[in-house]
Amino acid sequence: MNWFGAAYYPEHWPRERWKEDARMMAYLGINVVRIGEFSWSVVEKSPGDIDFSLLDEAIEVIYSEGIRVIMGTPTCTPPPWLVKRYPEILQVDRDGLTINAGSRRHYCFNSQVYREETIRIVKAYVEHYGRDPRVIAWQADNEYGCHNSTVCYCENCAIAFREWLKKRYGTLDRLNQRWGTVFWSQVYRDWDEIDPPRRSLSSPNPSLMLDYRRFSSDSVLEYHILQRDIIKKGSRAPLTHNFMVNFTEIDYKKMAEKVDFVSWDNYVMTDYDPDLQALNHDLMRSLKKSSFLVMEQQPGRVNWRVVNEAYPPEQMAFWIKQSMAHGAFGSLVFRFRQLPFGAEQFHSGLLNYDGSTTERAKAFAETVKELRNWKIDRLKKEAAIYIDYENFWIGETDNLNGNFNLLQDGILPLYKTIRSFGYNVDFLFPGDSPSGYSFVCIPSAFKLDPEFLEALQEFEGKIFITAMTSQKDENNNVRLQDNDSFKRLTGIRIIDAAGIKNPVRISFGKDEYIGGFVIEALELTDGCEEMAVYLEGPFKGKPAIVKKGRCYYLSTVGDIELFKELFELAGIKRMANGSARVLRTESNMVLLNPFPYNIRILIDGVVHNLREYEVKVVLPQRI
Amino acid sequence: MNWFGAAYYPEHWPRERWKEDARMMAYLGINVVRIGEFSWSVVEKSPGDIDFSLLDEAIEVIYSEGIRVIMGTPTCTPPPWLVKRYPEILQVDRDGLTINAGSRRHYCFNSQVYREETIRIVKAYVEHYGRDPRVIAWQADNEYGCHNSTVCYCENCAIAFREWLKKRYGTLDRLNQRWGTVFWSQVYRDWDEIDPPRRSLSSPNPSLMLDYRRFSSDSVLEYHILQRDIIKKGSRAPLTHNFMVNFTEIDYKKMAEKVDFVSWDNYVMTDYDPDLQALNHDLMRSLKKSSFLVMEQQPGRVNWRVVNEAYPPEQMAFWIKQSMAHGAFGSLVFRFRQLPFGAEQFHSGLLNYDGSTTERAKAFAETVKELRNWKIDRLKKEAAIYIDYENFWIGETDNLNGNFNLLQDGILPLYKTIRSFGYNVDFLFPGDSPSGYSFVCIPSAFKLDPEFLEALQEFEGKIFITAMTSQKDENNNVRLQDNDSFKRLTGIRIIDAAGIKNPVRISFGKDEYIGGFVIEALELTDGCEEMAVYLEGPFKGKPAIVKKGRCYYLSTVGDIELFKELFELAGIKRMANGSARVLRTESNMVLLNPFPYNIRILIDGVVHNLREYEVKVVLPQRI
Amino acid sequence: MNWFGAAYYPEHWPRERWKEDARMMAYLGINVVRIGEFSWSVVEKSPGDIDFSLLDEAIEVIYSEGIRVIMGTPTCTPPPWLVKRYPEILQVDRDGLTINAGSRRHYCFNSQVYREETIRIVKAYVEHYGRDPRVIAWQADNEYGCHNSTVCYCENCAIAFREWLKKRYGTLDRLNQRWGTVFWSQVYRDWDEIDPPRRSLSSPNPSLMLDYRRFSSDSVLEYHILQRDIIKKGSRAPLTHNFMVNFTEIDYKKMAEKVDFVSWDNYVMTDYDPDLQALNHDLMRSLKKSSFLVMEQQPGRVNWRVVNEAYPPEQMAFWIKQSMAHGAFGSLVFRFRQLPFGAEQFHSGLLNYDGSTTERAKAFAETVKELRNWKIDRLKKEAAIYIDYENFWIGETDNLNGNFNLLQDGILPLYKTIRSFGYNVDFLFPGDSPSGYSFVCIPSAFKLDPEFLEALQEFEGKIFITAMTSQKDENNNVRLQDNDSFKRLTGIRIIDAAGIKNPVRISFGKDEYIGGFVIEALELTDGCEEMAVYLEGPFKGKPAIVKKGRCYYLSTVGDIELFKELFELAGIKRMANGSARVLRTESNMVLLNPFPYNIRILIDGVVHNLREYEVKVVLPQRI
Repeated sequence: MNWFGAAYYPEHWPRERWKEDARMMAYLGINVVRIGEFSWSVVEKSPGDIDFSLLDEAIEVIYSEGIRVIMGTPTCTPPPWLVKRYPEILQVDRDGLTINAGSRRHYCFNSQVYREETIRIVKAYVEHYGRDPRVIAWQADNEYGCHNSTVCYCENCAIAFREWLKKRYGTLDRLNQRWGTVFWSQVYRDWDEIDPPRRSLSSPNPSLMLDYRRFSSDSVLEYHILQRDIIKKGSRAPLTHNFMVNFTEIDYKKMAEKVDFVSWDNYVMTDYDPDLQALNHDLMRSLKKSSFLVMEQQPGRVNWRVVNEAYPPEQMAFWIKQSMAHGAFGSLVFRFRQLPFGAEQFHSGLLNYDGSTTERAKAFAETVKELRNWKIDRLKKEAAIYIDYENFWIGETDNLNGNFNLLQDGILPLYKTIRSFGYNVDFLFPGDSPSGYSFVCIPSAFKLDPEFLEALQEFEGKIFITAMTSQKDENNNVRLQDNDSFKRLTGIRIIDAAGIKNPVRISFGKDEYIGGFVIEALELTDGCEEMAVYLEGPFKGKPAIVKKGRCYYLSTVGDIELFKELFELAGIKRMANGSARVLRTESNMVLLNPFPYNIRILIDGVVHNLREYEVKVVLPQRI
Repeated sequence: MNWFGAAYYPEHWPRERWKEDARMMAYLGINVVRIGEFSWSVVEKSPGDIDFSLLDEAIEVIYSEGIRVIMGTPTCTPPPWLVKRYPEILQVDRDGLTINAGSRRHYCFNSQVYREETIRIVKAYVEHYGRDPRVIAWQADNEYGCHNSTVCYCENCAIAFREWLKKRYGTLDRLNQRWGTVFWSQVYRDWDEIDPPRRSLSSPNPSLMLDYRRFSSDSVLEYHILQRDIIKKGSRAPLTHNFMVNFTEIDYKKMAEKVDFVSWDNYVMTDYDPDLQALNHDLMRSLKKSSFLVMEQQPGRVNWRVVNEAYPPEQMAFWIKQSMAHGAFGSLVFRFRQLPFGAEQFHSGLLNYDGSTTERAKAFAETVKELRNWKIDRLKKEAAIYIDYENFWIGETDNLNGNFNLLQDGILPLYKTIRSFGYNVDFLFPGDSPSGYSFVCIPSAFKLDPEFLEALQEFEGKIFITAMTSQKDENNNVRLQDNDSFKRLTGIRIIDAAGIKNPVRISFGKDEYIGGFVIEALELTDGCEEMAVYLEGPFKGKPAIVKKGRCYYLSTVGDIELFKELFELAGIKRMANGSARVLRTESNMVLLNPFPYNIRILIDGVVHNLREYEVKVVLPQRI
Repeated sequence: MNWFGAAYYPEHWPRERWKEDARMMAYLGINVVRIGEFSWSVVEKSPGDIDFSLLDEAIEVIYSEGIRVIMGTPTCTPPPWLVKRYPEILQVDRDGLTINAGSRRHYCFNSQVYREETIRIVKAYVEHYGRDPRVIAWQADNEYGCHNSTVCYCENCAIAFREWLKKRYGTLDRLNQRWGTVFWSQVYRDWDEIDPPRRSLSSPNPSLMLDYRRFSSDSVLEYHILQRDIIKKGSRAPLTHNFMVNFTEIDYKKMAEKVDFVSWDNYVMTDYDPDLQALNHDLMRSLKKSSFLVMEQQPGRVNWRVVNEAYPPEQMAFWIKQSMAHGAFGSLVFRFRQLPFGAEQFHSGLLNYDGSTTERAKAFAETVKELRNWKIDRLKKEAAIYIDYENFWIGETDNLNGNFNLLQDGILPLYKTIRSFGYNVDFLFPGDSPSGYSFVCIPSAFKLDPEFLEALQEFEGKIFITAMTSQKDENNNVRLQDNDSFKRLTGIRIIDAAGIKNPVRISFGKDEYIGGFVIEALELTDGCEEMAVYLEGPFKGKPAIVKKGRCYYLSTVGDIELFKELFELAGIKRMANGSARVLRTESNMVLLNPFPYNIRILIDGVVHNLREYEVKVVLPQRI
């Protein structure tokens, strides 16, 4: 049975209301609620004075309606007394300014004091609820890294960073050599001379910058493992953490290894793009190659944008169905009831401020009824996109074009193109194998995993690679002679490269297309043939797209139009035609209409019509 | 006799020049000058070494021409020696950075040391000039809050804030409950845990934010009262303080209670809008429901904008006449003479840098001659707009649309519409009564005073209310069940609301109009009827304007076109037609042309022609 | 023989490679390389442990190919151990935040500790290389002021500033009087009360601001002289420092006096404008009225812009030729070889990352061959533009239009106009004489040197002056009665002035033109005649251009179209027609085509055709 529910905060409402809330939950089809993740000051009112009676009572009421709970550890919000007692837990920014309490996430992951406080409070939660059968899962902390809290520059971090570097490099000589500190006279003679990349007049060393991002991500991971170890020791319930949309500051691939299942919070960050939400679903599924949970589903209006727009209940229903179609085993709406006080007072919920039901609640109940026992087979392996979280960090250091955003400009256009051709998309990470996919795309992977590169040499499907791929080594330095394997695969050597302010025209097939952000001047080796040339710009007349065997290389950043033509010419068969989205499993297909109007889609000669926001499962005609 | 004059700084000019200046003042028609408000380092060259001889002599010279003075206390500019001795008086910003001396207003209102220094120096001024008949008024300090100096985050403020909170809430339990600190685990167990809303990762508690703004405004008030008490004890001359244009950081309604008359500084802040200046005049008059003074009248170019534009002398003449028409009993130009040194060296004055007269001086003299004995009756009560200063602060915390500015987007369009219909405007505040007005407008009053709301139930005129009104309670929380009185008045219940990025079309009357910023989904109760509906957007088809009895509710933010149509359909009679402005008293009318070209206006069937910048008093034909 | 070369960093590459590098240098025609300027941590690995063996060996290898070196002192990049030992050397910004090490230039010019360290390390370099004949020149430090490092606000600077002020003013009374500290009660009674213009609520005193900029520039100069004295004492090789493009934070005129020859770094900062590069060349030549060196020539793509664009090798070749035509005696490309690590890893070089040659290297070799013995006579004195570095600083304090940039908006349009008429341009500075030039332009010289003004009275050529000239005195105060000399020259008195947001139309000659940024209202004295009037704006109908004898005054900021018409009407003869650039010496002319297409130019009735990027020396037909 799939999980449907909401975030519920019994501490926000009078005890007398709980029974009514639980009854409404049951009525709406809820079978699980998340509780507890901001409850520290409720459970431990004064230092050491731990009392779970409020949560106990609430869980009892909730469970009386057959609803189980996901228990959150409350470490995201250390209470005021804790911060006043230990102000050293606060983060410090790049400028050297302390970031104060007052909202949430106000702690440094490398604070030894905070780690001890974390152990103490998490142990208390696990001792109390570790064996409670009503607790069906644990969520450690809440949205690690939210509000740009991943990277801290405090002295605790400086000390921890040096230890991290010692482990990574062993000797200073090795570090100096790998980082190229001889440039600008930055050679270290003592580990204590190494500082975080705090504010300086010009660019810090790019190797240090990448390592600091790795260290920061690893610090979150290390902090998480503290909690994981306590929870796993004291409870048999599975452990998760709620990941975030479009979030690239933490290496989620590594983090996913430290949870039993991935969950994530499905919010629309800017202008709504259904494919961007779908991309995030596919990414989350790919992290553990497994089914996942939507821990927080946006119900409608949020409170944290400049303009907090409305979304109709039907769209929320679509979002829930879309999650399931992409591999979720459940969805919890954030939040059960709108809260009139606190910093999220304009965030919508299933219930109104006054506790009355809303159109959203009705739409939720209908959706749950429909999906309760929805079982969709595992999605077929079709197309794959390569992602390495470290490349997001490399992309934020020195580069050819500071306006290029790897996720938005590099990955999303390729994802959209593949989906428009009717293919499922999996994401592959360093260490993964491309085998079994029809084709693999590698969008601007500045650094390319050597093992993955080797696997590509043997891969039998088509390969599409875009500019800047394999440009950097492990230390964020430009690759030199050791790039032969990449040259063997692609047939190219890059002799020059540059950022471009405006797109350049490319002659390709029967038409003209454009490339953007960067361009490269290629030298082709034997067996590599030119498919398209630049019609303007500094590399006018030079190849824009080349092909060696099954491997296609684009020496610029493409848009959807260009990729469509490239796929066509490369013989990628269109599996669907139309504006609906399609996902395929071994036994059937799911068709999705993310739009508020009727659309159609042509698959294998059959036309399927979809009403606004409709999601339907069909048996394919011919596969 | 009305007051006409200028700001004069004898300390800036050689003693030998004073006589000449005084003669020119008299020649121009000046009967009062403001002096002294930046004179601390002149009067007290070294700590304790107080010497008024320069001011004494200057006043003697000025008075020899029959001119009196408004004496400013010099606390706006503590001298260098004071700051070096007591650096703890400096403000600290949200990031924790000290704001240094070097310009002006460099002190924290809650600094105990600075309060003592203030008492010392103000006492000295009052002891010296308290009984001087040549001093006809006092100005305490200068432009409280200017340069964003109202809100400080230093430790002095933290301590004072906690005391303020203790007085307001009595117990921490009460505060925790009112603020909803249970959200995000912010429950306080000790008053000392409460800090100013210093920089944090995400939004602080909105109740704390509102209270910090109240506390900051109250701190200014408390500081002002220190000075007031000394001045009132030592002098019979009336006390004022110069308020600022478009300024909403201090609760001027409360501040007005602590001065004998309101004065304000009439500057054009951005692109010139004559109605915006008029709005400020009406607001200043409404604060004490009494005549006011323009303490600083911009003469032409200022020095503090990015592009410091010129304005012709005729426009300055208009500004002075406009002030008087709106209820001023005088106007002082800032400044008498352009100063070649110091931070305002590009600010224009009546005299040129070299002491010669200017076209501005001539225009001033002519205007003064015309207005010297101008007595305009009290303006008639016609239309009113509700303002609560706290709503400006609420509007800057969490909200549906962060681009909405209450003054500019909420109040100004309504004001302009009313004025274009030919009505006088008064502003009403919490505690005021609407009685006696033809109609009352309540533009987006997030929080609505319960007493005022009750008074509206009995009010016999028409009422126009726009979106978001009465949405919040006293603690900046979203209102729940206790909003029945508002529901009774308007006939509506708000079931959903959202920000909108782009305006939405509304079908209203025979035409289409637009609403902006936010929209609300209304549920209508008995007796409430729909007047207009949304043609697009998330609440398409739902009511945009409704009417219950004499009360009209607009569930979005309107523009002038929409309000004009609403007034027409509501039967608000046009009292004037044309682009001139009109103000009515019991006995006559003032017609104003704020433009550099001739215009006309039709009133009661009579056409009045006005030359460029003309202001004239006429007897109405039929009233 | 001219100098051609590159920046070379032997410490970046394996010793085994040096021989090959030197051979390639020789092959490309290089006869000089700059080394050492970032070598501190290579030479002094630990405090006191000084070892020049790496540089010795590298110089030996380089010199074996007949190549000499320019030795840079390494003070631009204090090594990590030094910063950790003496953190007090770091700069502090206006907000009070420390600017950390991590990139370069991380030291305060007024740090006594750093000055001592500087003396120590520079002495070591000079003792070692002072008599080495292979060292043909010294470069002190590297790009003083780069990355906005000229102005620091630390306590060291505060103390040094007070000493600087004591020397300048002698007594506090004098300082108080000159600065006009009586404004806003800023009168100082003790030198220690004077602080740098750190962050305050509003504008600091403009006299203090100008003096702080002077002091900051002087501090750099004082620091430089420390190094100069050591180098000149220990070596007979000439000393230089590499100046920067468009850089106005340091008074380069004063700095030029402290070097034996000027060198500068020729980079394209924003969108390429060949005239802006030419202006910089002419400025550098004018500083010492002497030939100069391009110490760093951009080879193609740089790494420090948001979008790092490509430039073709032919354009680099043009840049080198353009330098020589404007008076350079050599050009060193930055850098010899692209570096795969460190903060400039995307900066291009003559060699590729892997040490292979590039098209840039080929173009360089061809250019060097062509120019090796190119001797162009001294450029003829034709037209001159007045510059005072202090005016750039005045332009950044209080002003009429904060959008006006003196270099870009005031000087460049005049420069471009003069060049389009076919004239050479020299820059003149305070103390220089206009004599010998056909005409002199004075674009918005807020402060005008009294001696230069006197010389202009006698000058026989034409004079073109634009708005705001002579508006300010030595203390950045608005000038009063003492401006008679300027009035005598121009025939005007400025009675009002203002910034303008949008350009205003001017009736001039047979057509309409526009003026921008500011306008002035002029009063004309005898002998001054009106040439053009404003068609709109606050001073409509008033004179826009006036003429007294040979002196033309424009009361606004002109663009190229306006200046062309003004020159025509003033009888400035066109010496060339067409889009090529021309430079004249006593014996010949250099024609330059900065464009990637063929152009032509008509000179003295003869048409000259130039291929893309061509630079050629021709004998003039008739002169």
